[in-house]
Amino acid sequence: MPKGFTAAGTAAGIKKNGKKDLGLIYCEKPATVAGVFTRNRVTAACVALDRKRLAESGVCQAIIVNSGNANCCTGDAGMADALAMANAAASALGIDTQHVMVASTGVIGQRLPVQKVEKAVPELAASLASDRFSDFAESIMTTDTIPKIVTRRGEIDGAAYTVTGIAKGAGMIRPDMATMLCFVCTDIGIGREDLQSIVAETNEKSFNCITIDGDTSTNDTLLVLASGMSDAYIKTAGHKAAFGKLMEEVLVTLAKMIVKDGEGATKLVEISVVNAPSDEDAKKIADTVANSNLVKTAFFGEDANWGRIVAAMGRSGVDFAYDRVDICFNEVRLVENGLYAGPDAEKAASEVLKLPEFTIVLDMKSGGGEAVVWTCDFSLDYVRINADYRS
Amino acid sequence: MPKGFTAAGTAAGIKKNGKKDLGLIYCEKPATVAGVFTRNRVTAACVALDRKRLAESGVCQAIIVNSGNANCCTGDAGMADALAMANAAASALGIDTQHVMVASTGVIGQRLPVQKVEKAVPELAASLASDRFSDFAESIMTTDTIPKIVTRRGEIDGAAYTVTGIAKGAGMIRPDMATMLCFVCTDIGIGREDLQSIVAETNEKSFNCITIDGDTSTNDTLLVLASGMSDAYIKTAGHKAAFGKLMEEVLVTLAKMIVKDGEGATKLVEISVVNAPSDEDAKKIADTVANSNLVKTAFFGEDANWGRIVAAMGRSGVDFAYDRVDICFNEVRLVENGLYAGPDAEKAASEVLKLPEFTIVLDMKSGGGEAVVWTCDFSLDYVRINADYRS
Repeated sequence: MPKGFTAAGTAAGIKKNGKKDLGLIYCEKPATVAGVFTRNRVTAACVALDRKRLAESGVCQAIIVNSGNANCCTGDAGMADALAMANAAASALGIDTQHVMVASTGVIGQRLPVQKVEKAVPELAASLASDRFSDFAESIMTTDTIPKIVTRRGEIDGAAYTVTGIAKGAGMIRPDMATMLCFVCTDIGIGREDLQSIVAETNEKSFNCITIDGDTSTNDTLLVLASGMSDAYIKTAGHKAAFGKLMEEVLVTLAKMIVKDGEGATKLVEISVVNAPSDEDAKKIADTVANSNLVKTAFFGEDANWGRIVAAMGRSGVDFAYDRVDICFNEVRLVENGLYAGPDAEKAASEVLKLPEFTIVLDMKSGGGEAVVWTCDFSLDYVRINADYRS
Repeated sequence: MPKGFTAAGTAAGIKKNGKKDLGLIYCEKPATVAGVFTRNRVTAACVALDRKRLAESGVCQAIIVNSGNANCCTGDAGMADALAMANAAASALGIDTQHVMVASTGVIGQRLPVQKVEKAVPELAASLASDRFSDFAESIMTTDTIPKIVTRRGEIDGAAYTVTGIAKGAGMIRPDMATMLCFVCTDIGIGREDLQSIVAETNEKSFNCITIDGDTSTNDTLLVLASGMSDAYIKTAGHKAAFGKLMEEVLVTLAKMIVKDGEGATKLVEISVVNAPSDEDAKKIADTVANSNLVKTAFFGEDANWGRIVAAMGRSGVDFAYDRVDICFNEVRLVENGLYAGPDAEKAASEVLKLPEFTIVLDMKSGGGEAVVWTCDFSLDYVRINADYRS
């Protein structure tokens, strides 16, 4: 684990089912912090609080997170609850409450049972340990079926550093962030502005390239803490690029874990658009295909229904020459210059669809633009999970 | 039925299951015609053909329609097949092939078995009758469970006229048209430009206000034929307005029938946004809520999950004051000024959700803009139908 960090997770009684629902990350000293948040117009109290603290201080020593309740659309009382949660953590840890950040995930519009949080925090803080990141990862889960932790190690001028990321996702996920929480700890030394620019850039290439159901949450938060407690310190543009690459690897790995564990998902599908008029056009096409219910139900049915892919491309708002388009399922070219390649290709494409992971390549042959979006299939279980979520 | 029109429908063997799949509408004399088509960048051969004929001649004497095959993404051969279909109808009816329009709906990317069409047309033409519109309505169905016909009568200066509309829908439906075909026959007398403007305007208020799954098809077509064979003739702006109103009633009724018969739908839900900053903003919010999978699965689960409605409003791209928003389920105010109204209101809202039809009113209290969109719930059967569609 990155030097300086400990974590913990416990069941505070917020979730009705008795599962872990309160987590804490702590750094021995105030860490440099950077973050990005949901673009949804309606945001939870914790998002407003973290945005303010990020702008004001630029350092963070602890993050306290609850699942089971989003503390969103709860008005002034909700903001008081978020502050109380931060105060409880600061008080138990003996640190400045301005250096505590807060995150929540769960049902919208109900008051957070903040007394339960306050009651659980002292013991939670006492249990902090460098080997309890998995408890933390469990404590932030909602409809996730597996905890999501990724650790990667890098080196700068011979000095080693570590990056550990923990995320949760599952539903309400789409480009422009998601019901997604992600916390990254690293012991690299880095300035605040460098860290923020790397976080913004790598977020675009990871969490903003995934979709489960096209919905976007009010609580999405990505926070990155750098303790500077290793001997690795970013001094040059080359160092920054190398760290950015490692960070991208961590975030892309977590993002794909989120899609793979999407509500009801049985398949992880990469939509890759190449040779589009522009990168922007490529992204629009990839997004529209990746979010089409008809495309996603066809994936679930293992049906190589390329007509639905074409129909989604056509409504993406991008002007393109359809009679140049090739569509490949992994290596199988099912559509060539806009026309069906025949039953042999379809049979081979159907085999690809049986795989748990595959790529759809949309070759536009109209320029140099490209984009990748990761999506999943749309199953009966997605509907079952979401029709019953609150009951 | 409107004077001058006859119709028929038969099974030509295009559908594997032996159901009706070929329909014909005929007018004794060339009728004034107006139409609107899909905005999808990828369009079927029939759409290209009809657009051309609409621009060139402005009259139409017959429409031939097949279901079970969209004749889309079939290249030059597909256009030859569409022309052959028109020629077959023209030849059997002894009319100018330029006055025949064509529509297709079904699977994308497979060649239309045009010989089957050519073989079936003579008998189909021979069976035309003024009481066979229901056969026609059946012949254009795909995953529809009921045929959709609406007839309304109007009067201009004491002279009666009739409007009959036939539509099909079910899946791939969203604002900006749908996998939707609609054919309207009327015996009113009206000029070409007046008819086109009424069709464009009433289409915006009907078919462009519905959604089932957010997907848009390559084949959407609305054609309106006016025979002028009644004694009612449009001479004044008042006449035009009265006819426009009746036409809107016919199209809105058909549009709501389509949503109610949406793939797997169990509920028809009206999303009504009022007091928004502008009509455009209202439409954006209504569309985003009406297309949210999370909102629609909650409707299916009869769960008054207003948090998902709020989250969808927030990602609509509209800037608004969330703390003024009221949300009502029919008469039940569940959210007031952005805050939860409590368990009694929720209990009452849950009763509303058990109804087969209800309205969600989103009162923005921020201006005079408004919009209505009709949607349905998102059920297990939607996924079942669309995972299995081609198999």
